[in-house]
Amino acid sequence: MSIAFTVQSRDEKSEARCGLLETPHGKVETPAFMPVGTYGAVKGMRSEDLEAVGAQIVLSNTYHLAERPGADTIARLGGLHRFMGWNQPILTDSGGYQVMSLSRRCVVHDDGVTFQSPLDGSERTLTPESVVAIQAQLGSDIAMVLDECVANPADRKTAEKAVARTQGWAVRSRPLAENLPGGLFGIVQGSVYPDLRHAHALQLSALDFPGYAIGGLSVGEEKEVTWEVLEAAVQGLPDDKPHYVMGMGTPLDLIEAVSRGADMFDCVIPTRHARNGVAFTSTGKISIKQQCYAEDPEPLDSNCKCPTCRRYSRAYLRHLKMRSEMSGAILLTWHNLFHYLDSMRRIRHAIHSASFADLLVEARSAEEAAP
Amino acid sequence: MSIAFTVQSRDEKSEARCGLLETPHGKVETPAFMPVGTYGAVKGMRSEDLEAVGAQIVLSNTYHLAERPGADTIARLGGLHRFMGWNQPILTDSGGYQVMSLSRRCVVHDDGVTFQSPLDGSERTLTPESVVAIQAQLGSDIAMVLDECVANPADRKTAEKAVARTQGWAVRSRPLAENLPGGLFGIVQGSVYPDLRHAHALQLSALDFPGYAIGGLSVGEEKEVTWEVLEAAVQGLPDDKPHYVMGMGTPLDLIEAVSRGADMFDCVIPTRHARNGVAFTSTGKISIKQQCYAEDPEPLDSNCKCPTCRRYSRAYLRHLKMRSEMSGAILLTWHNLFHYLDSMRRIRHAIHSASFADLLVEARSAEEAAP
Repeated sequence: MSIAFTVQSRDEKSEARCGLLETPHGKVETPAFMPVGTYGAVKGMRSEDLEAVGAQIVLSNTYHLAERPGADTIARLGGLHRFMGWNQPILTDSGGYQVMSLSRRCVVHDDGVTFQSPLDGSERTLTPESVVAIQAQLGSDIAMVLDECVANPADRKTAEKAVARTQGWAVRSRPLAENLPGGLFGIVQGSVYPDLRHAHALQLSALDFPGYAIGGLSVGEEKEVTWEVLEAAVQGLPDDKPHYVMGMGTPLDLIEAVSRGADMFDCVIPTRHARNGVAFTSTGKISIKQQCYAEDPEPLDSNCKCPTCRRYSRAYLRHLKMRSEMSGAILLTWHNLFHYLDSMRRIRHAIHSASFADLLVEARSAEEAAP
Repeated sequence: MSIAFTVQSRDEKSEARCGLLETPHGKVETPAFMPVGTYGAVKGMRSEDLEAVGAQIVLSNTYHLAERPGADTIARLGGLHRFMGWNQPILTDSGGYQVMSLSRRCVVHDDGVTFQSPLDGSERTLTPESVVAIQAQLGSDIAMVLDECVANPADRKTAEKAVARTQGWAVRSRPLAENLPGGLFGIVQGSVYPDLRHAHALQLSALDFPGYAIGGLSVGEEKEVTWEVLEAAVQGLPDDKPHYVMGMGTPLDLIEAVSRGADMFDCVIPTRHARNGVAFTSTGKISIKQQCYAEDPEPLDSNCKCPTCRRYSRAYLRHLKMRSEMSGAILLTWHNLFHYLDSMRRIRHAIHSASFADLLVEARSAEEAAP
């Protein structure tokens, strides 16, 4: 197992911590945000752009890549890093979540997930073993186990069954980690039930993964439930291993989760919002399509140091969006990713310099004051 | 009039020459290719990307910008350069061609062009005076006069009438050049009739514009007609002023036109082809969607030094195109613009170093050998 994690400093008043995650393709400072490159490309960004905007790791979706162009093809081309022209760390999901949420005729059973391929209608099965094998072909620095993520709301019985199945799959997956170039993370399930989450985290920890994800959060539940469940899960996980909250979230979500011991995040929000004309700023979200920006000479965020804010006005960005110009989506994607990655830098700096509590208060009050 | 042109070196065996065009926003080495940013943005490229790829001047479309966001808006925002975040030269067309080719109920009369606005259905008129005024609002370094570009084929009578009208408009426009921050170019018309082209070029030259365009070429006529007409026009134009061939062309077209005394070009081909998955290479065009590239680890063009060819395989670019990923269009746009701009650099270098004839032979034989 060639990944390692070291906690470097801790906030005294919360569970927040800074760490360093070492992978076969280099180091990642945590807390870390991972831009999502579903098909091996973050929409609108070249790999050199991701470097320039400060991404240290990206996430790619195994299910999508395995369908097209296919894991065999990527393996023959030298793996996902070479394919993408990205020489820094890559985390891949297992593909299970996508199959369960996107596929028709999907059946989850103890051996895995059987579904109808949208490509040719054939019946296919993902197993705990096969998803590790696919991620090995991709050459991921961090691979994820197959897990069962139940829909929200789920009754307790359903959640318990999914936890049991996920744990069984984790047990089967764990020895296969030796075949991976990097590390394999376990995934905590348990829906909205804090005691289930805590119990599963403890069970999973016994398998000694090099990192742990918390899955099935931010899927529609109330925020206070999210945080209660996250706290319960983190308390059951080893403190000296990275904690990755899958699919989260808004900038405020991220700092709230960091205060509860989360180290890693991925989310399509910054990139998808950018394509929809929504920009994150230090004073809240703005929708650039609004008429009020038609002659606004100011940048998206006058506190932002990103290339978009250094050079372009809201008026120009609105014009590009109204004309559906690709360049508009590109410029907003740069800004939103910079905003997210810069937020993580500020979080890390605050933890290192014992001012995280202030940053958290500031983030919460900015959210309340947002228009 | 604050633009100037100096011929710096000449090819001995053809009409090709290198020059330096000085504008309020800096210098342009000619022969020059101008990427097209219809709505004030070259599709898929940020202004910093255009700088990085080596563009020295861009073209923007007055008609499109005047419709949306409006010339008044751009003027209030400090002009087109500030609006686009582009501090190098900008050439704008008059908008006449777009009105005549895109608008419904368009009527050309001696006073100008009356058309129905696609925005609100209202009747509007472009006059020789109004198009200069709009381009003054935009702050173009090089503005174009209103001209009448007849459809191809056009009979001689139609072509003669269009020349007469275009010349009348040029006479009306010429004194207004004083209101512009940069220069105003006249436009030679005359359809496929070399004698009309030559006569109009002489007439227009009497008005002493700081530069001259040849309009209405590459609109479907045979190539040998294109070159005959271009030669006739150029022979009627002052040798010490820049010659701009509007809307041209392929890489071979450009070097052929340079050999006949052309100095400036604009065309949507490199950017539009990129979005359609077509790349220009040193051995011809390739359509990246073809199955044969599915596992091709080579760059688009192994002789190319562009960022796309330095980093990405044909297999990756094909995958992105097949998945309609924006990043695929971006990477091909970078490559195609680099290819065009690099071709112009090679042309300039060849003229300076007395090897243009060899380059022309090479370009012609590469085209013949292309698959």
